Amino acid sequence: MTGVAGLPTTDTQKLRLLLNVSRLIASRLELKPLIEEVVRQASRLVSADRSTLWLYDHGSNEIYTFLGEGLNQEIRMPLGKGVAGAAALERREIVIDDAYSSPYFNPEVDRQTGYLTRSLLAVPMESHDRQLLGCFQAVNRLDDTAPDGIGAFSEEDIDVLTALAGVAAVAVENALLYAEQKRMFNSFIVTLAQSVDAKDPTTSNHTMMVTGIAVAIAQYMGLSHERVERVRIAAVLHDYGKIGVPDDVLNKRGKLEDMEFMQMRSHCIKTILILSRIAFGRGLEDIPRIAGLHHEKLDGLGYPFGLKAEEIPLESRILAVADVFQALIQTRPYKQGLPPDQALEECWVMTRWHRDRFGRESGPHLDANVVNALGEILEANRGQLEFFEKMSGWDLMLAGEDL
Amino acid sequence: MTGVAGLPTTDTQKLRLLLNVSRLIASRLELKPLIEEVVRQASRLVSADRSTLWLYDHGSNEIYTFLGEGLNQEIRMPLGKGVAGAAALERREIVIDDAYSSPYFNPEVDRQTGYLTRSLLAVPMESHDRQLLGCFQAVNRLDDTAPDGIGAFSEEDIDVLTALAGVAAVAVENALLYAEQKRMFNSFIVTLAQSVDAKDPTTSNHTMMVTGIAVAIAQYMGLSHERVERVRIAAVLHDYGKIGVPDDVLNKRGKLEDMEFMQMRSHCIKTILILSRIAFGRGLEDIPRIAGLHHEKLDGLGYPFGLKAEEIPLESRILAVADVFQALIQTRPYKQGLPPDQALEECWVMTRWHRDRFGRESGPHLDANVVNALGEILEANRGQLEFFEKMSGWDLMLAGEDL
Repeated sequence: MTGVAGLPTTDTQKLRLLLNVSRLIASRLELKPLIEEVVRQASRLVSADRSTLWLYDHGSNEIYTFLGEGLNQEIRMPLGKGVAGAAALERREIVIDDAYSSPYFNPEVDRQTGYLTRSLLAVPMESHDRQLLGCFQAVNRLDDTAPDGIGAFSEEDIDVLTALAGVAAVAVENALLYAEQKRMFNSFIVTLAQSVDAKDPTTSNHTMMVTGIAVAIAQYMGLSHERVERVRIAAVLHDYGKIGVPDDVLNKRGKLEDMEFMQMRSHCIKTILILSRIAFGRGLEDIPRIAGLHHEKLDGLGYPFGLKAEEIPLESRILAVADVFQALIQTRPYKQGLPPDQALEECWVMTRWHRDRFGRESGPHLDANVVNALGEILEANRGQLEFFEKMSGWDLMLAGEDL
Repeated sequence: MTGVAGLPTTDTQKLRLLLNVSRLIASRLELKPLIEEVVRQASRLVSADRSTLWLYDHGSNEIYTFLGEGLNQEIRMPLGKGVAGAAALERREIVIDDAYSSPYFNPEVDRQTGYLTRSLLAVPMESHDRQLLGCFQAVNRLDDTAPDGIGAFSEEDIDVLTALAGVAAVAVENALLYAEQKRMFNSFIVTLAQSVDAKDPTTSNHTMMVTGIAVAIAQYMGLSHERVERVRIAAVLHDYGKIGVPDDVLNKRGKLEDMEFMQMRSHCIKTILILSRIAFGRGLEDIPRIAGLHHEKLDGLGYPFGLKAEEIPLESRILAVADVFQALIQTRPYKQGLPPDQALEECWVMTRWHRDRFGRESGPHLDANVVNALGEILEANRGQLEFFEKMSGWDLMLAGEDL
């Protein structure tokens, strides 16, 4: 092997580097820092001056530089163009000793970067099922026995870069899969929520607003990121059981008959039953329960189970406050919404012994700590309700973006 | 390094082996053959007599042998028990030179397998976010300078096995992620479908039956696996737009008023609009359209777009036949379902110029090839309708299993 100062020369050193790369792969989720490291190590392993990782853009049928040394802006090429594009299109490695005499080479990239490419090695990256992911490229093989210090890539370099591309491909695929899963999940839950809101046009954005209020409270109360996400998802789905309540009961203006009253109340247990059929991933197992307990009251007189105080998960107590507050401020055909400060005052009343709207003596319904958090959020935002809309993350979820 | 006949001795050989493993990882999705190969290579790389891969069972808090040389039955241990269990629980490597004098060692496994364990090396496997996946274990370090040919694992062996465990972990996580994504997807679409069926209790299993009939036809007609899956998903979701049609219109027994008729018909365009918001993964982009075109007719007089013949995707033409046939055989409170052979005859009529149920002259609605396939399936199954229930895959989807 050719010795180059500062670069590995022995197989033992190579072995160690490759072991390090393998270990790295398992150590990070974030796509970018992981690939940055793989690209850096790739250059050392094949004694290249620079390496670049190109990803394939399925939508535009282009490849683009996702990460590379010496790159300060993204470069895009149609699939098939340039050495990287050809390696990706033809799904095979391409080795070039003298770039400027090769028909594959696209000098445009040098023109954009001011770099002088001499030798090149590009290997394709594929997913497990042979979908094109992109291409791993090493440029200018360092060789201090060559007159200008730049030689040609060897058979062994091809093997090493192919192996690295394979390992990087698994990590890239993994990260893409996570992103796709998240997008799909978000779009499904928002679709479910909109299906319910569609049943009652007078409360159309109720679910979105409750989500925003609940998330804001959960964050303000210092819940962990995981718990805040549980609150968000449970809030989006909290009324889903209404899908099983007849339209005429749901939209009835006057007093509900006993039977109708029971059908109306059944929406909570239906939320739990229906959501329990969804295969929520790890950490989200409690979503059906959290969502379905938003009408429980601290005094134990809520539904569906009549749980008391601490028996009700904090997440559900947050949902309860968000739900009540939103219902109070919302204007409906038959009633004017309250201003936020008055709605908050009503929530405060419900944290104590009070007379309910039927004039009956009633114990505390809402958690005072939660109402307090809502009060402080409202004060900090001067009662601006658009804030909650933003906090819901609804637009991002609909657009399939990360929150 | 210790030389052992038939095992790699030089770093160059090791490098080559490790490169091969890295390449393997990217080359297979199937969890089992992939891990089999990694386990085999692991033994060669650390000169072990045997290697075993243990996976962590989150539900039971146990680890179990997923794959190992010389294992012919699964072994389970509580997390923390034995060397593998301890390495997994404590999330660190454990090296043992003499198993039977170690407090970690669980001789039960030897008793079950008839093997004699001497030296041991176990390294934990974690996901990118530090969730426990399992443990990689190598047993009996081969060493021909030792009196009985068995020596102790070295620092380098630890490094190599740790790197392999890291690479294997990414592959395991990837496979688990695919499985979870599939489970979640299936449970979501079935939940959506059941939400619609719940609106009209008289047609409760309509969606499941249509799915089974459509899948059976698609398979019979020789569509690719991918297209059959598209038919399945589109069938499950074909009526989802009914979520936006008022209950009283949906369930009205008598003749619909013009406005009601339009609301009823709007369910197809609503199916397309609502489903278009879902971030279906690659290959499933056409689901909203396929699902929403199930009321198009060959003569161009269907809805929502009035597409003609070949303009209607084959998948939608299959859905149309499945939908019509199921509606004909289904018994509802106000009508007795037809026997399958009579329903099939009705479908045949609809492939030609005919008088519709209002006595009007009407062009062909259904695709004769599709009806022909349904006829042959019915004949082969002697009209047994349970067959379609099974073909729907509904139970498996609800149970979150693979189809």
